Amino acid sequence: MDSKFMQNNLVELAKLIRFHILTSTTAARSGHPSSSLSATDLMTVLMFSGFFKADLDHPANPNNDRLIFSKGHAAPLFYSLYAVAGKVSAEEMLTLRQFGSRLEGHPTMYFPYTEAGTGSLGQGLSIGLGMALNAKLDKLPYKTYVLLGDSEMAEGSVWEAMQLAAHYKLDNLVGIIDVNRLGQRGETMYGHDVEGYAKRVSAFGWETIVIDGHEVNEIETAFSAAQKITGKPVMIIAKTLKGKGVSFIENKDGWHGKPLNKEECEKALLEIGEVDKKLVGKVASPPPTPSIAMEGGREPSPSQRGGQPARNGFAVAKSGGGGVSYKLGDLVATRKAYGNALVRLMESYKNLVVLDAEVSNSTYSEFVKKTHPERFFEMYIAEQNMVGAALGFSRRGKIPFVSTFAAFFARAFDQIRMSQYAMEINPDAPSAVGAGIKFVGSHAGVSIGEDGASQMALEDLAIFRAILGSVVMYPSDAVSCERIAELAADTPGNFYIRTTRKETLVLYSPEEKFVVGGSKVLRESKNDAVTVVGAGVTLHEALKAYEELQKEKINIRVIDLYSIKPLDTATLQKVAEETKAIITVEDHYAEGGLGEAVASAFVGNAYTRSLPRIEMLAVRKMPRSGKPAELLAYEEIDAAAIVKLVKKLL
Amino acid sequence: MDSKFMQNNLVELAKLIRFHILTSTTAARSGHPSSSLSATDLMTVLMFSGFFKADLDHPANPNNDRLIFSKGHAAPLFYSLYAVAGKVSAEEMLTLRQFGSRLEGHPTMYFPYTEAGTGSLGQGLSIGLGMALNAKLDKLPYKTYVLLGDSEMAEGSVWEAMQLAAHYKLDNLVGIIDVNRLGQRGETMYGHDVEGYAKRVSAFGWETIVIDGHEVNEIETAFSAAQKITGKPVMIIAKTLKGKGVSFIENKDGWHGKPLNKEECEKALLEIGEVDKKLVGKVASPPPTPSIAMEGGREPSPSQRGGQPARNGFAVAKSGGGGVSYKLGDLVATRKAYGNALVRLMESYKNLVVLDAEVSNSTYSEFVKKTHPERFFEMYIAEQNMVGAALGFSRRGKIPFVSTFAAFFARAFDQIRMSQYAMEINPDAPSAVGAGIKFVGSHAGVSIGEDGASQMALEDLAIFRAILGSVVMYPSDAVSCERIAELAADTPGNFYIRTTRKETLVLYSPEEKFVVGGSKVLRESKNDAVTVVGAGVTLHEALKAYEELQKEKINIRVIDLYSIKPLDTATLQKVAEETKAIITVEDHYAEGGLGEAVASAFVGNAYTRSLPRIEMLAVRKMPRSGKPAELLAYEEIDAAAIVKLVKKLL
Repeated sequence: MDSKFMQNNLVELAKLIRFHILTSTTAARSGHPSSSLSATDLMTVLMFSGFFKADLDHPANPNNDRLIFSKGHAAPLFYSLYAVAGKVSAEEMLTLRQFGSRLEGHPTMYFPYTEAGTGSLGQGLSIGLGMALNAKLDKLPYKTYVLLGDSEMAEGSVWEAMQLAAHYKLDNLVGIIDVNRLGQRGETMYGHDVEGYAKRVSAFGWETIVIDGHEVNEIETAFSAAQKITGKPVMIIAKTLKGKGVSFIENKDGWHGKPLNKEECEKALLEIGEVDKKLVGKVASPPPTPSIAMEGGREPSPSQRGGQPARNGFAVAKSGGGGVSYKLGDLVATRKAYGNALVRLMESYKNLVVLDAEVSNSTYSEFVKKTHPERFFEMYIAEQNMVGAALGFSRRGKIPFVSTFAAFFARAFDQIRMSQYAMEINPDAPSAVGAGIKFVGSHAGVSIGEDGASQMALEDLAIFRAILGSVVMYPSDAVSCERIAELAADTPGNFYIRTTRKETLVLYSPEEKFVVGGSKVLRESKNDAVTVVGAGVTLHEALKAYEELQKEKINIRVIDLYSIKPLDTATLQKVAEETKAIITVEDHYAEGGLGEAVASAFVGNAYTRSLPRIEMLAVRKMPRSGKPAELLAYEEIDAAAIVKLVKKLL
Repeated sequence: MDSKFMQNNLVELAKLIRFHILTSTTAARSGHPSSSLSATDLMTVLMFSGFFKADLDHPANPNNDRLIFSKGHAAPLFYSLYAVAGKVSAEEMLTLRQFGSRLEGHPTMYFPYTEAGTGSLGQGLSIGLGMALNAKLDKLPYKTYVLLGDSEMAEGSVWEAMQLAAHYKLDNLVGIIDVNRLGQRGETMYGHDVEGYAKRVSAFGWETIVIDGHEVNEIETAFSAAQKITGKPVMIIAKTLKGKGVSFIENKDGWHGKPLNKEECEKALLEIGEVDKKLVGKVASPPPTPSIAMEGGREPSPSQRGGQPARNGFAVAKSGGGGVSYKLGDLVATRKAYGNALVRLMESYKNLVVLDAEVSNSTYSEFVKKTHPERFFEMYIAEQNMVGAALGFSRRGKIPFVSTFAAFFARAFDQIRMSQYAMEINPDAPSAVGAGIKFVGSHAGVSIGEDGASQMALEDLAIFRAILGSVVMYPSDAVSCERIAELAADTPGNFYIRTTRKETLVLYSPEEKFVVGGSKVLRESKNDAVTVVGAGVTLHEALKAYEELQKEKINIRVIDLYSIKPLDTATLQKVAEETKAIITVEDHYAEGGLGEAVASAFVGNAYTRSLPRIEMLAVRKMPRSGKPAELLAYEEIDAAAIVKLVKKLL
C-alpha cells in the first residue's frame, strides 16, 4: 500500500459504491447488484488504496494499470468505482442500462475505462494475459488486474490462460477470484471451498493468496504481497458473500441478476447507512511516461499509426512491396506467401505481433519466429486463449496476427464474437472500427485432402462474415496473399484471411493492386455465356474449366472474388447484366459462404432490380479423406463440375 | 488383468501393431506414425491384456467398453489395434487415407469402432464423460477409456471435462495421457514433466497413476489399479517417446505427421524385427447382456426407437400433444414453452436427457430438473464440455437436449462442428443422419434488451445453418415451440431451436401442425403488394406492420418462416411470383441468417428462373443496451421499419 493513499476512507468509499450499485440497478429495474456487492470491498481496496495506478484523465496512458472485469455482469460495480473516482456523475449512474447510456448492461467500449467488452464469462483472463505480455514486450511498468467470478472458473478458457500465464512467468498479471459461492441458479461446483481453488490454481503454476474478501486489512495485505511476487502470476482467492452488505439478500440463493424493488432498495440503503455523496476517491498515479499522444483518450488507430491512406474507408495495398518475388505460373501455397509477407510486415509495423496455436510450421508464421522471435508468441493448442490474448494486445495498440488451421478458429468463436464488441466506437456512427485482430486460417476446405473432415475448414467464411464490420479475404495466389496480408495490417478492425494448404499457381504480377472490397475479372469476352465466381482453389478450377470450354468455343467470364466481405457489388451486378447466369463455386459449405455472399450483392439497397440466375457449387456431402482432386470431384466443385453446369445452363 | 488373457503375447502383438502403423502410413504417404508409436504399448496392454472388454462382432453391445482416441491423429494405431484383433485385414490397412477407405486420416464413423469422429484436439474426454454418465444413468457395467495427447492438455475443454468428471465421481472413466513430450512443431509446454501433469490432474480431483508408457508391467499394474479405484475418475499419465521403436525417429523433433519413405520404412521394420502376421489378439468379452437389438452394429436410430413416421425423411410433429394449453393471444415466452414441452417429452422418450450450462432458470430446462432430476445434468458454465458430453450420450443411444443462451453456443462451435462428423453414415448416400444433438438456444437477438451485446445471439443461425444436415428452427409462439421441440426429439441428426427471451403472443391453436421444412402463411390476400418473411420477434413486428398498413388499405402477405433449414422453397417461390418483392426481417446479423437462407431458395436446382427482388432487414449496427422495442427500432427491424420499406417498394 502506498502511504499517501491512507487519506482515502475505504469504509466510506465502499459504502458509497454500494449505494451506487443499489440505486442504479433499482432505477434500471435489471442488472446484477448481488454479484457487484460481493466484489465491492476487493475492488475498493484495489482502486483506492494506492495499488491501482492510473491516470484516469488519460485512459490511453501506456503506463496505466489495467482492470478487466471478466465477470462483466458486475458492471454496476465497475461503473460505481469510476463514479466514486469522480468520473461518472450520480445522475449518469442512474442511466444504467438505458438506451443511449454509456453504462450498458455489461461493460462496452462506450465507457472509456472498459478495456474490452466482457459478459461472456471466462474470457477476461486471456485478455489480461495479452495485456501483460504486451507490458513485458514493451517493458512497460503497468500491471493488469482481472476480476473473475467463481462460476466462470468452470470455463476451460480460464485454465488455458492460467497455464500460459505461468509458462510466460507473467508476474505483472494479478487475478482476483470473487468466490461468492452462488452461480446463476444455485451453488457452484465448489461452493466456498477456497482452498480447493487455491490447490488447482497453484498446480497451474500461480502464486495463490487466500483471503476473506470483505476484510479490508486482508485485502490490502494480499494486494501488497502481489506487488512483490516475481517470476509468476498471482491469484487472490477471496471468500465473499453474494449481496454482501444487504442482510436480506446476502449469501442467499435466488438473487442472481435481480435488482431490488424501490422498497427493498430503501431498506437496503438504511442498512448501508448514510453516505457522503461528495466523497471522491483518489487513485494513485502511474509512473511518468515520455510524451505520448494521449488525445481522445484512446490509443491511436492503426491508420493513425502510419498506415496507408484509406480509400472509401479501407486501405489500398502497396503493390510490389518487395520481399519474395513470385513468377507467373510458379506453384506457391498461399499459406507460405502469408509467412513471407509477415516477415516483411514485421519490419514496417513495429507494433505487429504474431500469435500461433502450435502449428506455425503449417501456417508458416514460423518464418517470423525465426526473424523476429521477440514478437512471436507461441500460444500452444489453446485457440480461445490465443484470441483473447490477441484482443488484449490489440487494445494496447498492437496489431496481432493470429494463425491456426482455419477449422480451429471454430474453437475460439465466442472470443471472436466478443472481439467485435471490443472495437473502438465512433459515437456518431456506431460500428466496428479501430483496433482489431487479424485472423489467418490455413488448411481451408476439402482440398486439404487426406487428413479428413476434422481438419477441413468448411464454415470459417460463414463465421467470420457474421462478425460486425469484419473484412473477409480469400487469396488465390501468392501475390494476392501478400497484398492481402498488407491490407490486413493496414485496415482497422477484425480481418480474416483464408489460406490454402496446397500449392496454387501464381496468377498475378507483383504490380497488381488489390483493395478491400475488390475483385478481379480474369477471363472476359464480349460473348461470355455465364460468369463463374471463385476464390482459392476453386478459382483455379474455374480457370481450368475456362480452358476446357474454350476448346468447345464456349466463353465464360471468370472472377477472382478475393474480397468476400465487403463485396464488389458493382462488378457482380455488371456481370449479372452481361451474362446469363452466375455460378459460384467454393470449397466451403453452401451456407454463409461465398455463394450466399454473392447472392447478397443483389438484395436490398444494393440492387433495385430482380436477382439474376445464380447457381451455387459448394461442399454438400460428408467430406472424406482422399487426394485433393478426388475430393473436389466428389463434392462437385472442380473444373468438371463447372463445365457440366455451364453446359446445362447454355 | 484377467488371467485368461495371459495367452496373448503382448510383445509380439505390439510388434505387429507397429508393423501396421509403419507400413500403412508409408503406403499412404501421409499420416502420423510417430504419434501412433508412442501410444502403442499403452493401447496394446489395454486392448489385449483383458482390461478392455468388448464384443467386437457387435459394436453396439451396450456392455462393451468404449475407447476414444482424443488424439485422433493416432488413427493408424487405432486401426492397427482392430487389425491385430482380426477386424481389419492387412490389405485394408494399406488403404489408409485413400479415397473410399473406411480408414480415414482421423477416425470417422465409416469405421465401425469409432465412437465419435475426433481430430480436433481436446474433445475426446468430454465425449467419454458423456458415455460414462450414460453408464451411470443406465447402470451399465462398461468403462470408457480416452487416450489423450500431451499437446491437447493445453485445450481448456479438457479441464472442463476434468472438473466435471470429478464432480460426478465418474469412476468408470479412465484417461490415458500419452506424454511423448513433442507437439507438432517442437516441445510442449511441460515436456516430459509427468509429475507436473499429475499435480494438475489430481488437483482437479482425479486419481493419478504415473508410469513409463513403454513398460508392459507398469502399464498392466496401472490398468489393474484403475479397475479398483472408486468414487473418482482415473488418469494414467504415461511418459512415452514419440516414434518409440524406430531409433532414428524416436524422441526426435521434426517427425510429427510425417510418414517414413519406403527406404526408411524398411529400415524401421528391420528394427522392429520379424512379425507374425497371422497373430490375432484376443479381446476380453463384456458381461452378458439381456437380449438387445444389435443388428447392423450401431444403435437403433431415434426413429427406430419409436418416433413418429417420417415424411420426406423428416418427422411430423404430433399436434395437440397435451400438456400446457395456450390460448390464442396469451403472452408466453417460447423459452418457457420449451420447458413445458420438455417435461412432456421426458415421459414419451425414456432415452431423452437434458443438459444445461448453469442457466436452466433462464432456458427453462429447470422444469425437467424438478420433474425428472435423474435425467437432468447440470454441466455448469462449460459449454464445450456440455456439447462434447451430449455427443457421448447421443452415441450411446440417448437423445440429448442441450440448452444455454444462444450466444454461448458460439463457445462450443468446434464441438458442434465435430458433432456433425459423429453422425451415423449411410454408405449409399453419405450424409449426416442418425443420432444427434438437440441444441436449444435462448435469449436470441437484440430483443433481449438491457443486458447488451455480449448476451445477444446474432450469429447463431449462421453457425447452425453451416452444419451439414442440420435442422434449424425458430418458433414464434408457444404452440409452435412445443411442436418444434417434439420434432427435435423425433428427427434424426443435429437440430437447433432458437427461443426468445421475451413473451410473445400465442398465434396458433393447439391443433396446428408443423413440419421440418415448413412455413405458415399468416396473412394473405389476392392483392398483396409484397411478402414479409419473419420468425421469432420479427414475425410479430411483421404482423404489427400488417395492421398498420391495413389502415392505409395496403395488403401484405406475412410468412412465419419457422423452419430456417430446410427451407420451404415451394412457398417462397410461390410468393415470389405472386407479390412484387420479398422483405426478410430478422433479429440476427445479415450474414448467414434468415435473409440469406430465403435468398438461397432461389438459387441452383431449386429455381430455374431469375430471382425476385429481395430486401433484407437485419441487425447491422453495433447493438446497445436498452428496452427491446428501442433496440428493434434502432436496428430497423421493427414494424415501423417494415412499414417504411413496404411503402418504398410500392
